[in-house]
Amino acid sequence: MILVDGVVHEGRIARFDYGDRGLTLGDGLFETMTVIAGAVYRLADHLDRMAAGLTILGFAVERERLEADVAAMAAWAPADGGVLRLTVTRGPGARGLAPPDDPTPTVVVSLAPLESGLMMQPVRLAVSSIRRNDRSPLSRLKSLGYLDNVLALAEARARGAGDALMLNTSERVACASAANVFRIAGDRLETPPIVDGVLPGIVRTRVLALAPDAGLVPVERSLTERDLEEADAVFLTNSVRLLRPVTEIDGATLPHDGRGLVAALFDRMAADVASETGRDPRGGRPAA
Amino acid sequence: MILVDGVVHEGRIARFDYGDRGLTLGDGLFETMTVIAGAVYRLADHLDRMAAGLTILGFAVERERLEADVAAMAAWAPADGGVLRLTVTRGPGARGLAPPDDPTPTVVVSLAPLESGLMMQPVRLAVSSIRRNDRSPLSRLKSLGYLDNVLALAEARARGAGDALMLNTSERVACASAANVFRIAGDRLETPPIVDGVLPGIVRTRVLALAPDAGLVPVERSLTERDLEEADAVFLTNSVRLLRPVTEIDGATLPHDGRGLVAALFDRMAADVASETGRDPRGGRPAA
Repeated sequence: MILVDGVVHEGRIARFDYGDRGLTLGDGLFETMTVIAGAVYRLADHLDRMAAGLTILGFAVERERLEADVAAMAAWAPADGGVLRLTVTRGPGARGLAPPDDPTPTVVVSLAPLESGLMMQPVRLAVSSIRRNDRSPLSRLKSLGYLDNVLALAEARARGAGDALMLNTSERVACASAANVFRIAGDRLETPPIVDGVLPGIVRTRVLALAPDAGLVPVERSLTERDLEEADAVFLTNSVRLLRPVTEIDGATLPHDGRGLVAALFDRMAADVASETGRDPRGGRPAA
Repeated sequence: MILVDGVVHEGRIARFDYGDRGLTLGDGLFETMTVIAGAVYRLADHLDRMAAGLTILGFAVERERLEADVAAMAAWAPADGGVLRLTVTRGPGARGLAPPDDPTPTVVVSLAPLESGLMMQPVRLAVSSIRRNDRSPLSRLKSLGYLDNVLALAEARARGAGDALMLNTSERVACASAANVFRIAGDRLETPPIVDGVLPGIVRTRVLALAPDAGLVPVERSLTERDLEEADAVFLTNSVRLLRPVTEIDGATLPHDGRGLVAALFDRMAADVASETGRDPRGGRPAA
């Protein structure tokens, strides 16, 4: 099931303008959101991020339209969880890079099942040969151009790891293929600043906000690979898997003295989701 | 008119699988080719580059299929010139970055008019704040993710220039938004090497090959912004405009002692196109 410009279609096939710049140039953005019991977790944050990104791209879509489209698809999600993807492109254009003066954006919403078993699943990382381009605004946006990350993930899998660790052009830690990176060191919870080529993740922001409840001091600072190797714990965050502990980087086992703190943060994240949606994301259990 | 998986459609609207990874992740490549009098200039070079790029992406499309699709659309091009765009995506996939084990690629061919008046049109450049990511294989591929270049072009236009000069992460010259960069210095014709984050342009390769005919020694070496400012002439190349002289960078007028050599190179390029297609690209004049 897919929603294209406000119209629901069975399956994923529908009419399309093949001059759409989303396809021809990657000229658009997307958001991936978890919906539980019909409620989209942190919807306002996702729409805020989308609006800020579209401003950088130089066009806008009415928020009411995005809210209505997301709500229409969220109503079809199973109660125990779904993943909504909202895609906005600049719409059709003529040949070449220059955008139309008055674009007619395309809005697509798709729905997939939420696999709650993926949450907190441990993962081994391999450092990618592909660097994250912190010298481009796209490193801070969820743009349609995800091929660097696709190739980094494939490279990591070919090396027996579960995901890639992407460094930026200054060899600082940026992210995994579709997740933010955190470390715990003593009582500090550290993650790279946005300027290092980091997507301002919705769960990233929530984890930083919830850190004090777990006795941790949230800090944004540049991290090296060595900082991760010497941490008490390393974990990833994203909107679908929430938290995942990292067990290895390039075959070297990471310390796990802080693993209990990662579990405590995950409990708080799950409670945060439950408080907003009325249901625990870990198994569809209704919230107490 | 558009050709999708071998079927011609009037206009640009046709059925589409909205799970196509070309739209959702920019997971695909394209080629832009000039067709004159029904013949595609350097078709084999374009298909070779596409095949090499698809190998890096990890999938393939039969060359006969691409040749047939391009030929079907080339037959519709006006005799005095058209621009064919061949787009290949990895095809539909499930949610997430991991590609299907056995992809079914999507092949799209579109046709636009060739505006021969754009050839040799002088252009002023503005140095972009966005760096070309030479630390990614995509900097050497014509991938669907062109949003960096779209934003760089918009930034340049906002500053009163006609195109962007993109440097790489080491501050070396990489390219314009959709063109390779050359300089003439004495009897040397210089352009950055592919490793600097440069697309191996089809016309770039031809210009290097034709340089000796114009009394120039072709050299691939890294260039700085200063190298361009101190050149006898600077020009851009791509498959649609062939050559364009650069007159300014960030408001500073460039020397033009080598402008005659640029014109001589353009004459040789035009003759090269005419020898392959049977017609001069500058105005649809049949070749002598």
